[in-house]
Amino acid sequence: MKFKAYQLAKRPAGKFTSDCFKAVELEKPELKDGDFLVKQSHMSLDPAMRTWVQDNEDSYIEPVRPGDIMRSYGVGEVVESKNPDYPVGSRVVGITGWAEYTLGGEDMQVVDKSVDVTALLSVLYVPGFTAYVGLMKIGRPERGQTLVVSGAAGSVGSLVGQIGKAEGLRVIGVAGSDEKCRWLEDELGFDKALNYKDANLAAQLEAATPDGIDLYFENTGGPIQHLAFDRMNRLGTIVVCGNIAEYSKDIPSPGPSWVDINLKALRVEGFVITDHYDKVEESMGAMMGYLEKGQLKFRSHVLKGLDSAVEGVQLLFSGQNQGKLFVEF
Amino acid sequence: MKFKAYQLAKRPAGKFTSDCFKAVELEKPELKDGDFLVKQSHMSLDPAMRTWVQDNEDSYIEPVRPGDIMRSYGVGEVVESKNPDYPVGSRVVGITGWAEYTLGGEDMQVVDKSVDVTALLSVLYVPGFTAYVGLMKIGRPERGQTLVVSGAAGSVGSLVGQIGKAEGLRVIGVAGSDEKCRWLEDELGFDKALNYKDANLAAQLEAATPDGIDLYFENTGGPIQHLAFDRMNRLGTIVVCGNIAEYSKDIPSPGPSWVDINLKALRVEGFVITDHYDKVEESMGAMMGYLEKGQLKFRSHVLKGLDSAVEGVQLLFSGQNQGKLFVEF
Repeated sequence: MKFKAYQLAKRPAGKFTSDCFKAVELEKPELKDGDFLVKQSHMSLDPAMRTWVQDNEDSYIEPVRPGDIMRSYGVGEVVESKNPDYPVGSRVVGITGWAEYTLGGEDMQVVDKSVDVTALLSVLYVPGFTAYVGLMKIGRPERGQTLVVSGAAGSVGSLVGQIGKAEGLRVIGVAGSDEKCRWLEDELGFDKALNYKDANLAAQLEAATPDGIDLYFENTGGPIQHLAFDRMNRLGTIVVCGNIAEYSKDIPSPGPSWVDINLKALRVEGFVITDHYDKVEESMGAMMGYLEKGQLKFRSHVLKGLDSAVEGVQLLFSGQNQGKLFVEF
Repeated sequence: MKFKAYQLAKRPAGKFTSDCFKAVELEKPELKDGDFLVKQSHMSLDPAMRTWVQDNEDSYIEPVRPGDIMRSYGVGEVVESKNPDYPVGSRVVGITGWAEYTLGGEDMQVVDKSVDVTALLSVLYVPGFTAYVGLMKIGRPERGQTLVVSGAAGSVGSLVGQIGKAEGLRVIGVAGSDEKCRWLEDELGFDKALNYKDANLAAQLEAATPDGIDLYFENTGGPIQHLAFDRMNRLGTIVVCGNIAEYSKDIPSPGPSWVDINLKALRVEGFVITDHYDKVEESMGAMMGYLEKGQLKFRSHVLKGLDSAVEGVQLLFSGQNQGKLFVEF
């Protein structure tokens, strides 16, 4: 049996382009003891993909090299198995790759088929885990504080803001279009949403944060970074979850001077979820709880077929996706 | 009775200059109930003074405004008292000001006269408290880690490095002259000291930190900041204690991009000791312990008379002081 997959053809110079990926045909592997074969049904497209293909041996995860199958998270069904923990017919979620079939690994989790796949990919798994760990474990907010989140209409940012509201924070979102801002305010219940493309962003941020900012959740980098930094309150916290606006630059923009990190006693802390797998269960339980209370809304942007990933992944970096982006096979 | 004091005459544009200060003659105040009068015997000169005179209402401490008596830490003796907690004859340490006499406040601590004043000002009080809280409470190092400290020959940096050695760290100091580097290596037991004025600083830092940097203690800003940041290990910590090279600039230099704060899951945390007064006793006890075990050496740069502060404070910003700088009255 043969199946289709995509390799990384070359590292992008700047943003992803279609010629970064190359379709290949692979032969179904022979299973050894402990192996299992997964037929992917849904593949997640995430901003982190741009960092995975960087030539950075220091990063938290092995870089994807030209010639490797491109990495992804995804959901699939076990179709052959020599591993009793992953029986045929079970649904798994984990690192899959841009491929119709993949050999499963021990990092994969079995998930009950009663769980809605869209909710799984959009809320419970990577975006929800990222948002929960970042906000609750790194940010450690207190009720009544002011939270500003960039990339607020993105898969992580939209959850961060909604968890913030559920936890009693005043939440300001920053996004890239008026339509996204309306969605954040009208549907998701953000206290205010700002379009970072507006000329008077600084004045708008000031008006929206009359008591300053206690917690800034950074998903994007770009101009909002320095504006939010300058409005941080003493003893405030900045959670650095992502920098999507910076990934495609040859030289990322500098950050703010460290003088105010000292004088205002700020904590600026980054994280990657691979360091927090011990909190997966807690996170899934908490996210499920918010969902059941109706405190989380999400929208999904679904593409059809593996081939759609090539152009689809580029939407993330032009901000054109509308909600959590994934491919349905 | 009249006595001499110095006001801040104007805010410095850039570094302190002598015309920033103006000598005035004051009348001894009448004491009300609870007041006590301190005759200052030793006045500390500290880099933080440059931040105190900044027009920054957001800072951790009320700014000193033109016309105010310039702020300082110091040691003195209670010479008149209407406060039973501060009897005449007792020695106190606390916020004094550039003045021969000062009204004491509740922030002042009574210190036994058996404690050597030089050790008090150089190790036990502000520099030691700063070094101890910054390294042990914010940095939270583990034995065997690599610590890099900038401003390593300064009053705080030299203690940070020595506490680091006492706690089993590999310690690299960065200072501004070959003489200071020799002192750090030969007298203080640093594993290596680097002169940041050397042209090949980057290569020297790389050679001195073959396993990367786990903990960077920032006292200076300037070129070492970006070099040290780039050599941070995953999950590393940066303690931002001061930025002396940045204080005199109109616009402080930008910091490093936040991309690696995310990808390496770094924590960059600032602090000011006014938030940590609850740890004064623990700190003094610990510093006394290091001293008694012979694990701390220090040198003091002593100026004579209040007038000497005007030019003396400028030594801190040209790096010409040799050890903890203070004025003996």
